[in-house]
Amino acid sequence: MANLQDVARAANVSKTTVSRYLNGSLELPARTAEAIDTAIRTLNYSPNPHARRLSLGRSDTIALVVPDIATPFFATFVAAVEAEADARGLSLALHATLNRPDRELKYLDHIRQGHADGLIFITNHAGSRALAEKVNSGGPCVVVDEDIAEARVPKLFCDNAEGGRLAGRRLARAGHRHVLFIGGVDQMISGARRYAGFLEGMREIAGPDVRIERSCGPYTFEAGRAAAQAFVARGPDRPTAIFATSDELTIGLYEVLREAGLSIPRDVSVVGFDDVGPLHLFAPAVTAVRQPVRDLGRRALELLLAPPPVDPERLPPEELLPVTLIERESVAPPVGQTRRNTNSED
Amino acid sequence: MANLQDVARAANVSKTTVSRYLNGSLELPARTAEAIDTAIRTLNYSPNPHARRLSLGRSDTIALVVPDIATPFFATFVAAVEAEADARGLSLALHATLNRPDRELKYLDHIRQGHADGLIFITNHAGSRALAEKVNSGGPCVVVDEDIAEARVPKLFCDNAEGGRLAGRRLARAGHRHVLFIGGVDQMISGARRYAGFLEGMREIAGPDVRIERSCGPYTFEAGRAAAQAFVARGPDRPTAIFATSDELTIGLYEVLREAGLSIPRDVSVVGFDDVGPLHLFAPAVTAVRQPVRDLGRRALELLLAPPPVDPERLPPEELLPVTLIERESVAPPVGQTRRNTNSED
Repeated sequence: MANLQDVARAANVSKTTVSRYLNGSLELPARTAEAIDTAIRTLNYSPNPHARRLSLGRSDTIALVVPDIATPFFATFVAAVEAEADARGLSLALHATLNRPDRELKYLDHIRQGHADGLIFITNHAGSRALAEKVNSGGPCVVVDEDIAEARVPKLFCDNAEGGRLAGRRLARAGHRHVLFIGGVDQMISGARRYAGFLEGMREIAGPDVRIERSCGPYTFEAGRAAAQAFVARGPDRPTAIFATSDELTIGLYEVLREAGLSIPRDVSVVGFDDVGPLHLFAPAVTAVRQPVRDLGRRALELLLAPPPVDPERLPPEELLPVTLIERESVAPPVGQTRRNTNSED
Repeated sequence: MANLQDVARAANVSKTTVSRYLNGSLELPARTAEAIDTAIRTLNYSPNPHARRLSLGRSDTIALVVPDIATPFFATFVAAVEAEADARGLSLALHATLNRPDRELKYLDHIRQGHADGLIFITNHAGSRALAEKVNSGGPCVVVDEDIAEARVPKLFCDNAEGGRLAGRRLARAGHRHVLFIGGVDQMISGARRYAGFLEGMREIAGPDVRIERSCGPYTFEAGRAAAQAFVARGPDRPTAIFATSDELTIGLYEVLREAGLSIPRDVSVVGFDDVGPLHLFAPAVTAVRQPVRDLGRRALELLLAPPPVDPERLPPEELLPVTLIERESVAPPVGQTRRNTNSED
């Protein structure tokens, strides 16, 4: 494991400089600061957790606020934060807001009243100014998974646009030109970025000759079922493939397609997103964009414990973690069509 | 919704008597107390949540301590408690212990230092005297899912024995006489009771002519994979059916059987337990004993907020919630054998 000396050497500065930079007692020229930041990231350097802990505050407790806890995505994320907190000797207090703004504000107040020294926060209310104000006026905070537009704190997301592109390319390459996107609204970065990336990926392979329909809603079983029911009710002009952008949407979709007697991928192809639930055991196994959920959890806590920025006027960074496409059995060429563009490369 | 008057009428006492009984200021003869308890349960009466809240303490916060949070069972349980707490205007602080005794003790101390007014506790360390002492010496507490032998607080479990019986009868009725039980150790009531019920259910249908092998371990993917690998490695004398007593065990088992090219239920039948994950979409869909997870969550909070027992010397009650067998596609008669006893009734 890299130590302070390694970071100093890599950044071509003294140990004292790194140390004072890390504890916020030294302002450095932007280029020097960047060199140290790069060295820290490259070497995966983590400051002495005990020292870090003392600088946090008295409670040794981190709070984690999420909309829901019953979905595999959030549950796995929370477990990763818990494991990372444990490794650093910190306690974790988790609060689920049921995705309600009043409950979010209440828990934020509770936490700021000294019940925790830092906050990792996931909300679906991207546009809420009240939330942004509370986040900005309190102690250390990291916003994860979905944005809060006006929050001036470090933010950590998966690479939603790339996830969309991977799915778009995959379906276009299988020959699909008319597809259904089931996902979040444009106010949520996950919805906006996955959709934009998806369109881009389709066009990259198929040119302008693509038609994408969009069904917006929450990332729930119920929304997946509703979108699937609307799909099933349509005639022969319906799309030949579906991009369902959460595990819950995919599960609802699979249920309805099965009930309707539609076969995946013979009658319709499906690409999922998240890949936290056991999609590999489904009939058929789901081709899906996998989110790095455990990495998100680990990294969220690292960012929370990272030193505050030297220049408080500079916006904290937004960090993206990479996603991957897991190929399984739910994608095939559209009926009556042979595969096109199979020779294209990413 | 039933009110105090309804309860008083059903129990044949005055409203004042019920009220004083509920707030603990009146000792009643056992028979009268039971009549009120029965009326409350039958009418599904819930005391005024506001009044109840005031009697709890100052923080309006309930703590929930669970071993893990990444499994659908715990995640769904937590979500149910959260919803119930929200309906009563209470906050919830959740802590995951990673199933480690030191972390359990630490969180219990944290909670008892005034961070919460009540505790819902799930642990796998049934025999821990240190845990029992902390549970007994603190404020209101309910033990859920697994027992702590020496804890003298209300306890809430699913009907593990009945779940075992349902699975045993189902497999015996399909003709299986040699089966593998994958589950917890005898120190955990879930392990002991599911196994005892399973044996009972098999014998009930098949008489003494049954052979049950047992693979004990944690309720994890890894344990499911390990047990399945041992199963696959055996020759033709291996069991013809498997009872995998958690969703995670079932997922690990399915993975390995699929990798080994074994077909369910043609080569081996499977019955699962929990049925919280999307087992209905698996290939093949899993026949499983379903736990009433959301009811467990709701009822746990009700018990926590219930009035303390009139007689502190009497052991608090242990309550069991019913389970059901969900029939799907993973059970068939053993190879080369026609179904026996198909006319038997439960």
